[in-house]
Amino acid sequence: MLSEFDLIKQFFKRERPGRADLGIGDDCALLTPTPGRQLAISSDMLVEDRHFFKDADPFMLGHKSLAVNLSDLAAMGARPLGFTLALALPAADPVWLAGFSRGLFALADAHDCELIGGDTTKGPLNICITVFGELAPGHALRRDAAQAGDDIWISGTLGDARLALAGYWKELALPDEDHAQAAQRMHMPAPRVALGLALAAQPIARAALDISDGLVGDLGHILAASRVGATLDADALPAGPVLARQEQALRRRFTLAGGDDYELCFTAPVSNRTAVLGAGRISGTPVTRVGRIDAEAGLRFVDAQGAPLDMKLSGWDHFS
Amino acid sequence: MLSEFDLIKQFFKRERPGRADLGIGDDCALLTPTPGRQLAISSDMLVEDRHFFKDADPFMLGHKSLAVNLSDLAAMGARPLGFTLALALPAADPVWLAGFSRGLFALADAHDCELIGGDTTKGPLNICITVFGELAPGHALRRDAAQAGDDIWISGTLGDARLALAGYWKELALPDEDHAQAAQRMHMPAPRVALGLALAAQPIARAALDISDGLVGDLGHILAASRVGATLDADALPAGPVLARQEQALRRRFTLAGGDDYELCFTAPVSNRTAVLGAGRISGTPVTRVGRIDAEAGLRFVDAQGAPLDMKLSGWDHFS
Repeated sequence: MLSEFDLIKQFFKRERPGRADLGIGDDCALLTPTPGRQLAISSDMLVEDRHFFKDADPFMLGHKSLAVNLSDLAAMGARPLGFTLALALPAADPVWLAGFSRGLFALADAHDCELIGGDTTKGPLNICITVFGELAPGHALRRDAAQAGDDIWISGTLGDARLALAGYWKELALPDEDHAQAAQRMHMPAPRVALGLALAAQPIARAALDISDGLVGDLGHILAASRVGATLDADALPAGPVLARQEQALRRRFTLAGGDDYELCFTAPVSNRTAVLGAGRISGTPVTRVGRIDAEAGLRFVDAQGAPLDMKLSGWDHFS
Repeated sequence: MLSEFDLIKQFFKRERPGRADLGIGDDCALLTPTPGRQLAISSDMLVEDRHFFKDADPFMLGHKSLAVNLSDLAAMGARPLGFTLALALPAADPVWLAGFSRGLFALADAHDCELIGGDTTKGPLNICITVFGELAPGHALRRDAAQAGDDIWISGTLGDARLALAGYWKELALPDEDHAQAAQRMHMPAPRVALGLALAAQPIARAALDISDGLVGDLGHILAASRVGATLDADALPAGPVLARQEQALRRRFTLAGGDDYELCFTAPVSNRTAVLGAGRISGTPVTRVGRIDAEAGLRFVDAQGAPLDMKLSGWDHFS
């Protein structure tokens, strides 16, 4: 039977020199921030049957657990530095742990984000990651910075993760190949770190967040924090490749109120349109203009012809 | 029914200005570290039926969840700055949340440690706190810094938390009043933050850690990291007031291999004995000298007369 300390040593402690002054194995990790930089910190907890299925593939779960945290750094425009991992496991299963840690470190290494510490305990499967990044003071892309007249932009595409869930739930029948493609989006989201960094560099964008609970609900946080409203072009929203082949009503519903997208929604002055497209290009991330921020409160929808649409949608609430 | 956002607003978001540049409510919290300081970071996860009982008092649980994390900062000699809280709850129960947040903030405020962000979700009760502190570079009390000839010191007293557990488990019969007193130590540990700061100030101490899994197991981490051995005087170990009234064998066993003590075990050069006592005095924390670090590997026990004792004890392993 694998002990707690063997488990950490075998699957999570790595010998390569890291950024931290002191990594795994003491009471605390020690990290020296870059002088003059601001720290960005976020914590996400993933729970079985809520954020992932009971028999979720451990490699993909390792990826996703870190991805949703890196997505928060991306939404702030912060550069990843490191993270802690607290893990409650029903049992110390070496096969599961090998897969999980490989998925975790593959993404961590891709973003030069070091595992600096954490905790392991026995309990119902629960994965809690706290991630640290840094950025230049005043450059953070905050939710309260949107201004009337700003364009609203979306990175990548929306709705395929929600479509995959609909497939799992048998809400609709999808060909196996389509479902597999959509499921990849659900299980292996790509955090938009490079785009976030590019948007925060000047900064080019004003407000930003990552879409985890559906665009409508999440955009609502920007509107509330910035005390503005918005108009979205429901037909301009970039649907994922599988969702794009579905009928219009479903396309609108899942792009507007899907969930698990982990794309960025951000606002930028109209004068920065070329700069935003440039940030998309240098970061290799598609960006699409989908609406505008209004002085008038509330969220309105229009179709491709600019005609008002009546849509009732809301975000995901973990306790509703 | 309380929504996720109402829950955070009602119980965890506070209006008073804080240390963080940006607190709860955005994708990340923003914090500007004191220039020239090193960050100390630790994460602990508490799980029902493992770290606390199913019907644990929420006020005491709020206290303990943060206390075990502050204890890690104390063991490093770091000054608390802030923390994130990730919480999985079976239901959004306002009575439980009110008690939990009051216990949490009472301790947080006592240590000027700000809640800067986190996550809430539905799931089996799980509390994951990640805490941030800072210290002068080179002053951290690391596990790998013990040297042969160092004194070994313990803060406060040991074993009463383990005695309380023995009472709950009916391993032994305790008078109600004794059990209540011991249980207080188990449920409301006092993190030795002030002592840790005083010991790291010069620094006075060399190696340190906090005792969470029993002295023998935890001291073993210092010995392994520092590549040294130690001799402990089993009868010099300061027993908690309730345990002190029990017979010698139990006293030795629960001080040496109890658990949930959250006292500091630290080493310091013999030349610093007066300074250590002074650090204890200014921090209002009793400190007791209990042994010495040896060049020879292994952990040996002696009695009050210096005669060798044969004791087989080990630390707590969450997966054994």
